[in-house]
Parts: sequence; structure tokens; C-alpha cells
Amino acid sequence: MTATVSSDADQQARFADALRRADLVAAELRATAAQRDRANADPIAEIDLLRQADLLQVGEPVEYGGSGLNYAQSQQITRRIARGDTSIAHLLGYHYAQQRIPHLFGTPEQAGEISRGNAQERRFWGGVQNPRGGSALELTRDGEGYRLNGRRTFASGASVADWLSVTAVFDGNLVFLALPRDIEGFRALGDWDNIGQRLTDSGGVEFVNTPVDGAQILGGIESAGKELSAYQTLVTPHWQLAFVNFYIGTAQGALEEALDWTKLNASAWETSGLEVATDDPYILELVGELTAQTTAAALLADRAGDALQAALDFGPELTAEQRAETAVAIAEAKYLTTKVSLEVASRLFEIQGARATTSAYGFDRHWRNLRTHTVHDPVAYKAREVGDWELNRRAPQFSLYS
Amino acid sequence: MTATVSSDADQQARFADALRRADLVAAELRATAAQRDRANADPIAEIDLLRQADLLQVGEPVEYGGSGLNYAQSQQITRRIARGDTSIAHLLGYHYAQQRIPHLFGTPEQAGEISRGNAQERRFWGGVQNPRGGSALELTRDGEGYRLNGRRTFASGASVADWLSVTAVFDGNLVFLALPRDIEGFRALGDWDNIGQRLTDSGGVEFVNTPVDGAQILGGIESAGKELSAYQTLVTPHWQLAFVNFYIGTAQGALEEALDWTKLNASAWETSGLEVATDDPYILELVGELTAQTTAAALLADRAGDALQAALDFGPELTAEQRAETAVAIAEAKYLTTKVSLEVASRLFEIQGARATTSAYGFDRHWRNLRTHTVHDPVAYKAREVGDWELNRRAPQFSLYS
Amino acid sequence: MTATVSSDADQQARFADALRRADLVAAELRATAAQRDRANADPIAEIDLLRQADLLQVGEPVEYGGSGLNYAQSQQITRRIARGDTSIAHLLGYHYAQQRIPHLFGTPEQAGEISRGNAQERRFWGGVQNPRGGSALELTRDGEGYRLNGRRTFASGASVADWLSVTAVFDGNLVFLALPRDIEGFRALGDWDNIGQRLTDSGGVEFVNTPVDGAQILGGIESAGKELSAYQTLVTPHWQLAFVNFYIGTAQGALEEALDWTKLNASAWETSGLEVATDDPYILELVGELTAQTTAAALLADRAGDALQAALDFGPELTAEQRAETAVAIAEAKYLTTKVSLEVASRLFEIQGARATTSAYGFDRHWRNLRTHTVHDPVAYKAREVGDWELNRRAPQFSLYS
Amino acid sequence: MTATVSSDADQQARFADALRRADLVAAELRATAAQRDRANADPIAEIDLLRQADLLQVGEPVEYGGSGLNYAQSQQITRRIARGDTSIAHLLGYHYAQQRIPHLFGTPEQAGEISRGNAQERRFWGGVQNPRGGSALELTRDGEGYRLNGRRTFASGASVADWLSVTAVFDGNLVFLALPRDIEGFRALGDWDNIGQRLTDSGGVEFVNTPVDGAQILGGIESAGKELSAYQTLVTPHWQLAFVNFYIGTAQGALEEALDWTKLNASAWETSGLEVATDDPYILELVGELTAQTTAAALLADRAGDALQAALDFGPELTAEQRAETAVAIAEAKYLTTKVSLEVASRLFEIQGARATTSAYGFDRHWRNLRTHTVHDPVAYKAREVGDWELNRRAPQFSLYS
Repeated sequence: MTATVSSDADQQARFADALRRADLVAAELRATAAQRDRANADPIAEIDLLRQADLLQVGEPVEYGGSGLNYAQSQQITRRIARGDTSIAHLLGYHYAQQRIPHLFGTPEQAGEISRGNAQERRFWGGVQNPRGGSALELTRDGEGYRLNGRRTFASGASVADWLSVTAVFDGNLVFLALPRDIEGFRALGDWDNIGQRLTDSGGVEFVNTPVDGAQILGGIESAGKELSAYQTLVTPHWQLAFVNFYIGTAQGALEEALDWTKLNASAWETSGLEVATDDPYILELVGELTAQTTAAALLADRAGDALQAALDFGPELTAEQRAETAVAIAEAKYLTTKVSLEVASRLFEIQGARATTSAYGFDRHWRNLRTHTVHDPVAYKAREVGDWELNRRAPQFSLYS
Repeated sequence: MTATVSSDADQQARFADALRRADLVAAELRATAAQRDRANADPIAEIDLLRQADLLQVGEPVEYGGSGLNYAQSQQITRRIARGDTSIAHLLGYHYAQQRIPHLFGTPEQAGEISRGNAQERRFWGGVQNPRGGSALELTRDGEGYRLNGRRTFASGASVADWLSVTAVFDGNLVFLALPRDIEGFRALGDWDNIGQRLTDSGGVEFVNTPVDGAQILGGIESAGKELSAYQTLVTPHWQLAFVNFYIGTAQGALEEALDWTKLNASAWETSGLEVATDDPYILELVGELTAQTTAAALLADRAGDALQAALDFGPELTAEQRAETAVAIAEAKYLTTKVSLEVASRLFEIQGARATTSAYGFDRHWRNLRTHTVHDPVAYKAREVGDWELNRRAPQFSLYS
Repeated sequence: MTATVSSDADQQARFADALRRADLVAAELRATAAQRDRANADPIAEIDLLRQADLLQVGEPVEYGGSGLNYAQSQQITRRIARGDTSIAHLLGYHYAQQRIPHLFGTPEQAGEISRGNAQERRFWGGVQNPRGGSALELTRDGEGYRLNGRRTFASGASVADWLSVTAVFDGNLVFLALPRDIEGFRALGDWDNIGQRLTDSGGVEFVNTPVDGAQILGGIESAGKELSAYQTLVTPHWQLAFVNFYIGTAQGALEEALDWTKLNASAWETSGLEVATDDPYILELVGELTAQTTAAALLADRAGDALQAALDFGPELTAEQRAETAVAIAEAKYLTTKVSLEVASRLFEIQGARATTSAYGFDRHWRNLRTHTVHDPVAYKAREVGDWELNRRAPQFSLYS
Repeated sequence: MTATVSSDADQQARFADALRRADLVAAELRATAAQRDRANADPIAEIDLLRQADLLQVGEPVEYGGSGLNYAQSQQITRRIARGDTSIAHLLGYHYAQQRIPHLFGTPEQAGEISRGNAQERRFWGGVQNPRGGSALELTRDGEGYRLNGRRTFASGASVADWLSVTAVFDGNLVFLALPRDIEGFRALGDWDNIGQRLTDSGGVEFVNTPVDGAQILGGIESAGKELSAYQTLVTPHWQLAFVNFYIGTAQGALEEALDWTKLNASAWETSGLEVATDDPYILELVGELTAQTTAAALLADRAGDALQAALDFGPELTAEQRAETAVAIAEAKYLTTKVSLEVASRLFEIQGARATTSAYGFDRHWRNLRTHTVHDPVAYKAREVGDWELNRRAPQFSLYS
């Protein structure tokens, strides 16, 4: 996938370096996260921060100016960023997924050209793909070229992106488009105002008679109507892996933040007979329980990343069974990271105590962020997919959504 | 406690009528709760709504113009109000508790006079009692009278109250005061800005050289230093019972609201093969689980109310063991209503799905409200108190806080 | 239902007396429960103990020699017995349900005659009704009378009963029979050997050409094919209420037994720095949590009993909606008592510590008993029934099983 | 630790081969586990089965005839065996730990000689170390040699062992002994009869005037009174890692067994409208949830093994902080494997349904086995240790027990 001429050791070094940069960005984001969550502005400065830290092109080849990380590694960057700001990690995780779409659906030339552009221009990608909510985008022929019309909801990052990864329907069939954001007829509706993931700019968008060139259709117009290979249907696991990573990263960051706060600010409970809150038996037990669960869920997320990467490394001949195993590994991680991260985000107040509910700290944003995104698709169905595979070897049904 | 000349049947009718009025107020509050939560104004209109509905004096004798409800009944009103707005229920629940303080600590004359005033003027009481956070109020002698100086944190409703229920220290000993809010030298600090219970106006207050008359000291200055009877230490269970009721009322209201919304707005999950979300097996199961838990926790809250009322009805000769049993019954309810209400408030999004996270609905306020108040005192210690009683017959330690 | 000429106060006194007798029997059963569980003999002595304590006829009219308790009260006896022995409570709970069947399906004369016989002879009833497992009993005409042929599984108590409550199929339609156990052609298969409820004697039975008289068919042969009224379909909630009561009674008894043992035998954990286990913060918290949950589940079970009793007291004109509400109240209790009792039975070892796993104590029998019976019907479907009612007002489907 | 002249690839091949052998043994043990659990005989045939499969000496050097596996790898064998029989895995896991004791406390010569003997004779080791229950073993001087007197409880495998790993007190100080089981004056008390881990032969033992040679004291008599190094205190994590592995292996085996049974035997629930149980939405969800949790807990167990192995590989200069990190990693795994394995063992009946409670299947043994061993030491204290490290960097206190 991310073929480079460099050695494994070089790749590891670049990975370590990218993680280090991500940690610095995460620390910077955390310091202002509560305040930015309240301000609810478009995440322009934040994306610029990612760009300045060279985090937008980590998955592109070294020869083009990227870091040559594989997809699983890039989502570890997402996880690190989530320790500081779940919204921005959401944008970055989706961005990494959008960057892989040309490699799944485009011609080698399209994929190569886009990769080069991504690396050189440090482009940020938004997604216009959400099939939920009755929205639809239609591509129609117009002379030599095409026109795009319609709306989509929940287009995370689209209004602040450089490029857009778009799915549309052409003559009843799915096509994938790669379009510059400043294309004619595109408009973000600016209607995102949700209880969490406030900085993800996930409102609706509209295309009105937008001109589309044949070269902007991944795989060309002839791709419309072709059955997707098992390998191509890995597109959805790309997104789901991003979710898994920003959920668990959020849990890790929230817990770390809560412990730091507790050491500085918490008071021993009056009937505990203790001098300091950090000696409280129930606080210690709870910290231990949440730590163990978070560590385990993170390992399951790592395993999910390894599974997807192995499938990608296997390549286009991937079998339906391999695809199923990949999707199930991610579903396991989705189920557990959802459960654990919500529990961490809610119970950390039991570690910190009443004073942590002051708005200025904004500690509620973790639960709001997680609660908002973890209903993207119902987690009970992820558990069901795992069970159906374990019990019946029935593969998860493919959709572009979950 | 609430001796009246009327019959039981009359009392039941007055109770039913008060519940009906509370339901109407709750419905009105619910309709605007999300919007008011965002606006974060002082709860002046809300208290006036309670006053107009004759809900402020339900616990005062009928002959004075009250409804003659006993304390447990009054907290059922709190529960109903919490179905519409947890902040306002918090204010009302505390208010009912403050109104009982003269009956525990005052002379019969003081208690009677305050009751009459409460009923006639439909007074709203705020509390200046929170002993946490290092704050202190000191009462000192000044000629014939006294002066009050100092600060207290978390004085719910004090800035919008007609009267204040205050605890202070006189010569190292605790005294209870009943003061008009417009007393000289009193000032609310206006520093309440928390993630939940936003409309409770629970900021700090300050008294600077406030003149206090001996008649405003419940039980007179000679009460300072007297050991509290078991009966008097029921003061804290009064507050704890209020908590229990606004927790479970919130769960009931949030669940009801979520079901109403689901019937109108939810979409069937795409891979479910169903036409409507309300046929989804996982949604139905979850609704059932949350319903059963909520019903059970509400029954435990009823039992806690009965226990406190029985102790109050027993009267001043209450034994330490009876007091312990009362406190333990409330601790059981505190533990379970905390656990269940938080679970309901968080998981209702799994019933409703992604679109319920739109800010306009404000469905996150339930979790924020509960999360904020349920750390008032650590619930693990409530479980411990229950266990210590069951296993060792060791009574919960008295404090003014929990 | 249990019309008597006596006053309410008399009835309460008889109820209190029956509870007292039940407590004595429970204590006696508990003392030998572990040993009898291992011995796995037929519960002949145990049923005799119930008979000697006048517990078999508590639901029959006073004028016939019963205690005139209503059905909900009789299931409180089941709960008490479960504190000592879950198997015997299972037998007794079913027995009480079987005794009500003639009142639902028989003619007034049949019901009266059977009641009189029950009271005078202190009969114990077994049930031959389980429709699961592909078993079937067929009633066919034979001259003036009838013949019964076939097998049924899980016929709790049938082999040790005096009388049998039987369901059979006549010409494709359901009929209810009341037969003496020593009837010709009846045989118990003696094939019950399960991990729990070992003393319930719940093996299969067989009828070979058993002669049945028309008078033994409840409601007569003309009842076959008549649609059941909503009132008659309360038959299944009778059994379900028995389950609820022996689940929660088991939890209460197991917890009490564990605490008694702990006070005498448990050791402080070595790193706890404590002298005695009964001061351990985690043990105290766990005792508190399990206590609160058990109390709440018991209240929900009480409410379920009240609901069924109210439906019975309403009488034959019961509407489908009233029937649904009754069934849903029991389903709520079924869900929660299942969950809570299993948790208590498993976690009590965390209170007691390692030495409590010695076989001689037999403390594992609680979990084995509960685990065995709580899969009688899947509890997820009970939660679903509650949800379907709350969300859609769809009534639980009637079956003879759950 | 397990220095060999062979390559990594060879070691991996030997590990793979040992796992394969373990899987075969596990399958054989599972087939008879329920029956052997009931029979409750001494595990002589089972240990012989391990011996025949060359599983007793996997951790000894290749040049002596072992498989040269490191300690973490050997405990993966324990995990595999637990999929078939938790008792036998317990014996094997402890055995592997006992085999490492000479390497921690003995002279190089003692360690080498014991390793050689272990490999050549395929010795099985029992443990006589449990410091709980007030038991004590005292070593005293007797001429040139020593005498051992006293009792210990819970000496797993001692009565059926070839050699015994013993801790005793000499002049108030701890010493470690390695003794042949057929030594004079040794006697197993045969008093093990517990609800689970029935085949572990974990009864008490007694030494009466047993002659001990100085060479049998690990590190010689001069070791008595020397402070243990951080490296030596890894002895306890060895046992704890064994626990973690047989807990999670049990969960894996129980779940696999339940799914196999379900596919063959389970019936669709009557109101589900489904043909087969394996399509039931609640069963599929539950299988998915338990699978995901089991996978995650197994990953945490792997991480714990890696942590201990890294500490062992670091060697005798291990710092107190490294030791703490190792112990905490194992504590995390202990907490989660305890929680998850108990949940799996109890809830699998909800997958299988009522017929799975038949005694012949013995499916309850999983819960009984886990419940018995998971109270070895209170898991709340393991969570506390994790929390104390995370919050305060306070290292877990060393003891020989947990």
C-alpha cells in the first residue's frame, strides 16, 4: 500500500516521529479544548495546526513528501490526537480514510496523482458520503463531462477542507469522486450544532449543478455498476477503524486528564478518615478498573488495526472470508471501545468529585463527544455481527456506512 | 408533624391535587428546559411558576393556607417536577427540606410562625449550609444582638430566595438561623457555572456584618453547644431524600421524553430489515431494561420516603437505631437511584439514535444534571454505609452534608 | 377469589401467621439444604414439612380449613421458603399456581370441590403442563369417558404429588385436567438430574391409556375449543409470579447466609491493614450494593404480586389491556429479579472469601439453582415485552409457558 | 533465563509444537471433564497425560530435553489446557511457576541441576507455599542437617507430585526448599473438597520431622534473612500470571464449548418467530459481547506475560520500579480476566437455554472452577494496586501470596 524504498527501521523511525508530533499537537489541543468546545467555531486553526505538524500527509509515500506510514499506523495518530481533542481526531481519522479511497477505487494513475498532491500541498480532505438521512447526490452526464446535484448530511470537515471525497449515484450506480472543495456550485449548509463533536463541522452540504470532469471519477465512469471486490469493500472498515481509535484515545486522554486534576485538586471525603483523596480506597479501585479496561480496549483496537492492515497488505485478491474476519475484528473493537470509553467519560467524575463539574474545566465534553459519535451506528448490531460470525460464519453485510 | 384538623381522605385529595399541579408545571418546564439550560439565567420565572401553582407551601398546615402534606409527600412533588426540569426540582426539593428545619431545631413558636409566613407569603427558601470547600460563617455577639460574617459555597437558590436557611458557628458551636434574604450585608457571588444543574443558582454567598436578632436563631442562642438529638439529626436525611427524588424523577422524565421522541423521529437501522425503529429488538429490550430498573429504583425511593416519614411521625424520642434505619433506607435509595438514573440518561441515546444528539433537543442535559449532582457526596460511601449497617449494625455517621 | 366471612384484620393475622410458619420451615430447610442438594433424593420429607406447617392450603378458604390468603400473599410464602431452599420454594410456588387453575378454568362446583379437598386433605399438587421439548399429551374419547396418552417433560413435583394439574390436547384443542396422582397408567420417568433445582423432581412423565372422567376436565369437555378470556390467560402470570418470588427469596436468603458466615468465619485481607474482614471497605461497599439491589428487586416483585392480585380481584371481565399491564408488571420483576439474584449468588463469594468455596457449605447451590431456573424462558424476551408495551402498547403474546 | 544455543526460529517452532500438543491434550481433557469433575479422583491420570505429551518440561533448556520456552510462553500452554480443564491447567500453571523458583532463589548449580532433573525425569512439581490460614512450616537445625515440621493448607498438586517446592521459616526467616515428594515424614491430608477446581488436589499437607539436607535449601541456609531483590520478588507474579492464563483459557474454552453445543442442540425461542436459535438477535448479540470481551482480556493477559518476561529477561538488576510495572500489568490482567471469565461462565447458559442445565453436560463446572479460584485473593485489591500505581506511583506491596 505504502510502498517505499526505505527500510523497516526508517519507517519505524518516521512512525515514532509522527507519534511524537501528534503528542505535541494533542497537548496543545487539550489546553484549549474546553474553551474551543464552547466557542464552537469552524476548526480552521486546528486543521492548520495538524498541517504545521506535518500530520496530514503521514500516510503518503516518502518520495512524495509523506511519512510512508501504513493505514493502521496513521490511525494511531488519530488516537493520540483524540487524547487532546476528540473532534479534531474525528476530522483527522476521517481524513486518513478519505486519502485511501483513491487507492481502493481509482486507477493507479489517479491514486498516484492524488497521493502526490496530498503530500505536496498537505491537503485536508472532507467527506461527503453519509448515506443516512434520506440525502442523495446525483451525477448526470452533461456533454463531455458531468454535473453533480443534491445534498448530503453529516459531511464532516467538508466546509473547511481542501478536497472532498464524494460518493454519488450515476444512473442508479455508485461512483466515487475526488473534487477540490472550491468547486463551482458547492456549498456547506453550516447546520451542525450538536451536543458533542462540536468542532467537526459535520453539517450538510449541497451541490448545485457542479461540473465534474471524467478524470475526477475514481476508476472512471466505467466503474459505475461494477461489482465491488471484497478488497474495495474494505472502505467502510477504514472509517470504522478511525472511530475505534478516536473513542479509545478519548478515554485515555480523559482518564489522564482526570488523574492530573485529581492529584492537584481533589479533596478527601469527610467520612473517609483520610488526608488526601488519592488515598481513598474507592477512588483507587475505580482508577484501577478504568485503567485495566482502557488498556484492554486499546489492545483490541490495535488488533483491529493489524487486521485491517493485513487485509490491505494482502491486496486486491482478498477473499470474502478474509474481509469478514477483518470487519469482525473491527466490530469487536468498536463494541468494546464504545462501552469502555463511555464508562470512563462518565465515571471520571467519581474520581474527581463535585468540583470537577465546574464548566470552566469542560470535563463533560468527553462524554458528550463520545455519546454523539457512538450512536453513528447502533453498537448492538456490531455485537450481533461478531456473534453471527462466531456462531454461523455469516459475514457482516457490506454498506458504505457501518 | 403536619397536624391538621382534616381527615385522611382530605389529605389524600390535597396530595392528589398537588401532584396534578406539579405535573402541569413539569410539562411546562419540560417544553422549555433545553432552551433555559442554554440561557443559564437566574431561575426567577421558574420559582414564580412554582409559586403560582401553589407548590411552595404544600408542606404547611391547611389552616395556614398550605396543603398539609407530610414530608415524604412533598418530595413526591419534587420527583414530578424533576420529570420536567432537574434544576428546578433540586431547588424545590431543598426548599421543602429547609422548611422543615424550624420544626427540628426551632421552638414551637418559631416553627409555627415560620410555617404561617411560608403559607401566607408563599415564600421560597434558599439554603446557606454547605460545609464543604473550607467555607465558614461565623456568628458573633454584638450588644443585644449578633453579627454574621463569612462565606459559603454552593448556596442553592439563595440569591433568588425570599428567606434563607443558614447554618453558622457561634463560639465553636453550630447554630441554625432563619433570615430574610434581603437582610443587610448579604450578597450572592453569582459564581455558579457548572456543567449541569445550571438553573439551581448554586453559587457562593457572603455575609458582611449582617445583623442577626436572637429570635432568628432557631432554638435561641442557648441551642449552641447542645447535643443534637437523633431526631434532630434527621435534618440531613431530609436533603438526601430530596436528591433521591430528583434523581429518579429525572430518569422517569428523560425516559418518557426519549420514548416520545423515538415514536416520532427515530429511523429503523438499515441492516435490521425493519420498517420502523420501534420494532427493533435491541431498542425494545433496552427500553424494557431501563423501564424495569427505573420502576424498581422509584419503589426504593418511595420506601426511603416512608422510612423518613415514619421516623418523623415517631417524633423527638426517636432512638439512634431508628435514626440509623432511616438513614440506611435513604442510602439504599441514593445508591440505586444514582446508578439507574445515570444509566438511563446516558443510554437513552441508544434508543433514539444519532439524530437525537442535535443540540436543539438538549437531551444531554439529563446526564449533565445527574452527573453534576450525583457527586455531591461519593455514592460508594452510601453503599458502604448500607453494608456497615447490614454486616455490623454500625450506624451511619451524622454530618450536615450526607 | 378467596371470599371469606372474616374481616381484613383476621386475614392479615392469618397471613402473618403463615409467614411466621414459613420462616420456621425455611430455617429448618436451610440447615440441611447443602446436604440435601448433594443427596438429590425425592423431596418427600420436604413436602411433608410444608404439610405439617399447614403451608399447602394457605390459599384455600378459611371455612374449608385454609388460611384464606390471596394469591399474591401465597407467593410471599414462596419467597420466604426460598430463603431456605430454592427447590422447595419452586415446588411450593408452582403448587400455589396449580391450585388456582380450577378457579380460572373449572366450573364453580369443580373449583369449590377441589378447594375443599385441598384444604381438608392438605393435598400437594404437581404440574404436567410444560409445552416445551416437543412433548404432547392427547385426550381421546373412550365410550362415556376419555383416555389420556403421551409424555411431558419438566413435570415439577409430579412424582411426589397427591394431585396433578394437567394440560392436554383434545381434538386439537387445549383442555385442563385435575387428576389424582395415583391414577392408572401414570408414571414418572425419574429423569431429572440437573445442575440446580435438584430437589424439584422436574423429570418427565408418561400417561398410558389413563382413564379420565368428564368431571375431571375443568369446565367440562365443552371447554375445548372455547377461546380463553383475558382473565383465563392470567394462568401464565401465576407461574411467572412464583418464579419472581423464588428468585428474589433465594437472593435474600443467600445474602443473609453469606453475612452470617462472614461475621463468624471471614479473615481480613492481608494487605488491607485491618483486623477483621467486616471492616473491609470493599466488602462493606459490596454488601451495600447487593443489599440495595435486592431490596429494590423485592419491591418490584411485591408490585408484580399486587398487579396480578388486582387483576384477579377485578374478575372475569378483565380487559386485554388490564391483562397486558399485569403481565408487563410481572415481566419487569422477572427481568430484575433474574439479574439481581444471579449477581448476588455469584458475588457473595467476594464477601466471604476463599474458604467459603468448601463443598460442605454448598454455597454454590444458590447460583446453580438460579442459573437453572432463570433460563426457563429467555429473560431478554421479558425485557422486550416490557419495551414493546412502553413504546408501542403492544401486549405480551399469551402462551402457556411464559 | 532459558538460554539455548538454538535460533529464534527454532524456538518459535518448538513453541508452536508445544501449543499443538497442548491443544490435543485439552481436547482429550474436555471430553471427560464433566465426568471427572463429578468423580473427584486424584489427578494422577491427567498429570500423566501432560507428561506423555511432553508438556511438563517445556520451560527447561533444550540441551536437557526441554522445549526451551520462556516463562510467558509456558503460561500460554496453561491457557490452552484451561480450554479443556481448569483444574489441570491450574496444576500445570503452578508447576511451571515452581520450576522457576530455583532460578530465582537457588545457586546456579542448584538451578541447573534441578532443570536437568526436570527435563530428564519429566518431573511434576507441587507447591507447599500457601501462607494463608494460619499454617506454618518450621525448619530447624539437626546436627549437620535440618528437620522440617508443620502444616500448610492449599498445597495444590502436592500429593501427586514428584517434587515439592516448599517455603519454610528458619529462625524467623524465609527459606525456599526443593524436596522430593517421597521424603520421610511428608503426608498429604486429603482434605480438599471444594465447589470448583476439584481436581487440583489442593488440600493440606504435613511434615513431621522430615530430614532436610543443606543442599535442598535454595541458595543455602545463608539465604535465610537476606533481603530479597526486586528480581526475586517476581516469584509472586509468576503465580499470578498462571492464574490470569487459566482464567482466560477457561473463558475461551467454555465459550467455544457453548457455541458448539448451541449449534447442535439449542431451540429457537417460541415467541421469536425464528426457525433456529442461532438466528436469535439476543443470542447473537450476547455471543458478540462475550467474544469481544474475551478477546480483549486475552490480549491483556498476553501483555501481562510480555511484561513479566521482559522483567525476567532484564535480569537480577531489575529495579523496584520495573518490578512494580510488571506487577501492575499482571494486576490489570487479573482484574479483567476475573471479571470477564466469570461473566462468560455464567451467561453462556443464556446462549444455550434451559436444556444446557442437565448435569450430564456439567457446564456449571466453568463457573464453579472460576468462582473458586478467583477468590484466591480479593480482586478489588488488584484494581486498587493498579489505581495506586496510576495515581500515586506507589508500588504493589510484595507478599508471597498475591
